[in-house]
Amino acid sequence: MNSNLMQNLIVSAQTKIVMLIMDGLGGLPLEPGGKTELETALTLNLNALAERSSLGLTIPIAPGITPGSGPGHLAIFGYDPLQYQIGRGAMEALGVDFELGPDDLAARGNFCSVDTDGRITDRRAGRIGTDVNQVLARLLETIRIEGAQIFIEPVKEHRFAFIIRSPGLNDALSESDPQRTGVAPLPVIALNPDSEKSARYVNQFIISAQKLLVDKHPANMILLRGFAKCPILPSYQEKYGLKAAAIALNGMYRGVARLVGMQVLNVGGNTLNDQFVTLEENWRDFDFFYLHVKKTDTFGELGDFDGKVRAIEEVDALIPRLLALKPDVVIVGGDHSSPSVLKSHSWHPVPVLLFSQYVRADRLAEFGEHACTHGSLGTIPATHIMPMALANALRITKYGA
Amino acid sequence: MNSNLMQNLIVSAQTKIVMLIMDGLGGLPLEPGGKTELETALTLNLNALAERSSLGLTIPIAPGITPGSGPGHLAIFGYDPLQYQIGRGAMEALGVDFELGPDDLAARGNFCSVDTDGRITDRRAGRIGTDVNQVLARLLETIRIEGAQIFIEPVKEHRFAFIIRSPGLNDALSESDPQRTGVAPLPVIALNPDSEKSARYVNQFIISAQKLLVDKHPANMILLRGFAKCPILPSYQEKYGLKAAAIALNGMYRGVARLVGMQVLNVGGNTLNDQFVTLEENWRDFDFFYLHVKKTDTFGELGDFDGKVRAIEEVDALIPRLLALKPDVVIVGGDHSSPSVLKSHSWHPVPVLLFSQYVRADRLAEFGEHACTHGSLGTIPATHIMPMALANALRITKYGA
Repeated sequence: MNSNLMQNLIVSAQTKIVMLIMDGLGGLPLEPGGKTELETALTLNLNALAERSSLGLTIPIAPGITPGSGPGHLAIFGYDPLQYQIGRGAMEALGVDFELGPDDLAARGNFCSVDTDGRITDRRAGRIGTDVNQVLARLLETIRIEGAQIFIEPVKEHRFAFIIRSPGLNDALSESDPQRTGVAPLPVIALNPDSEKSARYVNQFIISAQKLLVDKHPANMILLRGFAKCPILPSYQEKYGLKAAAIALNGMYRGVARLVGMQVLNVGGNTLNDQFVTLEENWRDFDFFYLHVKKTDTFGELGDFDGKVRAIEEVDALIPRLLALKPDVVIVGGDHSSPSVLKSHSWHPVPVLLFSQYVRADRLAEFGEHACTHGSLGTIPATHIMPMALANALRITKYGA
Repeated sequence: MNSNLMQNLIVSAQTKIVMLIMDGLGGLPLEPGGKTELETALTLNLNALAERSSLGLTIPIAPGITPGSGPGHLAIFGYDPLQYQIGRGAMEALGVDFELGPDDLAARGNFCSVDTDGRITDRRAGRIGTDVNQVLARLLETIRIEGAQIFIEPVKEHRFAFIIRSPGLNDALSESDPQRTGVAPLPVIALNPDSEKSARYVNQFIISAQKLLVDKHPANMILLRGFAKCPILPSYQEKYGLKAAAIALNGMYRGVARLVGMQVLNVGGNTLNDQFVTLEENWRDFDFFYLHVKKTDTFGELGDFDGKVRAIEEVDALIPRLLALKPDVVIVGGDHSSPSVLKSHSWHPVPVLLFSQYVRADRLAEFGEHACTHGSLGTIPATHIMPMALANALRITKYGA
């Protein structure tokens, strides 16, 4: 849909929308013809909600395409994931909860090992401990580049996020990581004239890093790849007129929510229950809540069918608390599928449920892949969900006279 | 979908895909509310396969649009049939198994009858025998055009394919066939400056043909129409990373398969059984097999409901041999519908079945138009089938981080 069309039709209302995303929700049966994780889970509350809802399946990107978490979320948030691309460096920075701004250029960083001739002997520096990483990251942050600011955010083992902040940076840069051992790291090259300053700054940083790390073997050098600035997206306020809040525990999801202008709420713990407490405590202050559940994807990627089933049941148990808040619209869905038999994200359409007092309820008292196949929403692009949620929240006025 | 998107995500795998196309598969019941040809056919093997598959219906071109065989096939092969158009002349040449190259300009030719004043008296030359056509075609091939090569490929009765080969030819040409009698054939006119050389060559050929045929009444003149060069399509190898083979008996389908870079296999006979033998013999050497069944369409176009039912049953009987090869992905579908009550191609969506170990099986133990209406694939553009087949063959990697 033309996104300006909807933006022009947005009206204000007192209604509240909750989008509950179970990461990697869609699944597959263990045996052909069997039940998926969602169908196996005992979900009395979701089933009861499904009976009063419209059901369907969402396609995050395109038929057959397996989404990463970034594009999967952008799609369910209503942004065309092919128009707005979040590069790998930006995802890495978002993943450690770094607040990427418009002047920031990010990259994925590795500590690596080099020999006395500067040739790479181990691209992952023997997977140094995260504690060592943290110390070395603080060391790298002492590097000064005239006209720019440097941030090094440790991730895990040998990995870190590299961010350089300066006006006018550009991400059309080659990578320093040659992706093999036995050769020296590559100089970073500007891939167009607009990125020459960026290349100069980054190369200055790399040379300084090499000097600083010279006696830190196995972590005596760095590699940078996936240079990316963050796309600038219209915010939920601009696009939908929504004051939106995100309740997510993991950096990447908090980051993507921040990108679309959601206020990322502090959660006083790391359980699903803590997330629901945060929802309840902030209920009066926002129009829209994005609540992200990570465990469903984690177990899917681990290939743990039963774990994913339990993670879904844990969510189901909290549905009454959500409904007790009397939301006007509830979306329950996912950013992509992560079937445990595949141990990875997958291309399969994702079950979705849309509840409001104005939906034509499908009378299918089950929330599962097969029930959703027969739902009235059909199998639709994920980007269609937000317009329908807004309509059900009486937040879109008539088009034309 | 953006086709570059998918091309960039293609990864290699050892998996094999079989696309079994029953030409004109979709049908209609003889009486309202009755069963279609496919639903009438006793298809125990296809029904058993359907139970383990995702079902749906494909729209080859657009809602309400009846496809020709060329665009119908391009769509199911995954090429936008509105972007890539195969003109009538090119289809005629492909139909007689002529290997059209980038320097070839093709047209549909007719022998016709003219009176002593050169006015057309019969546009089909009294439908001369194909044997006479063959003799006259050899005669026309003796015509020499400086800088070009001429090929005349007899079709049936009065029809032939005309091909002229020379660098820089262009198909923006008017037709010589006035589509009525009592007037002389028209000179071929260049419709833009780029086609002036082509017009000159073709007119030279027509004048020479008229002289050669002067005493060959009723076939004493020719008419040319539908001038077309072949579109240049990205090959299956480039687009999908697939080493693809075509097993088709009829020239047109062999030709379209060749256009998309499939290797057209020799079949040692003209039965469906011979085609399956070819599939078995070549199983190790390709990643993708397109197997084309013509009879379903032939009977549909003849208005022979029972004949089409039998043709489908004949295919069903061979399904166990296909499955014995243990393909990773099987598509069973059609290029368009040819309901016998219409005695022609039609606009109706075409039943399709997608089998792999990773589909969410619809548990619909029937392969037919109504069952497919309830399938999880939905009613979708035919071009979506290949991305889903590739995904199920684990040949598409993740989009974005």
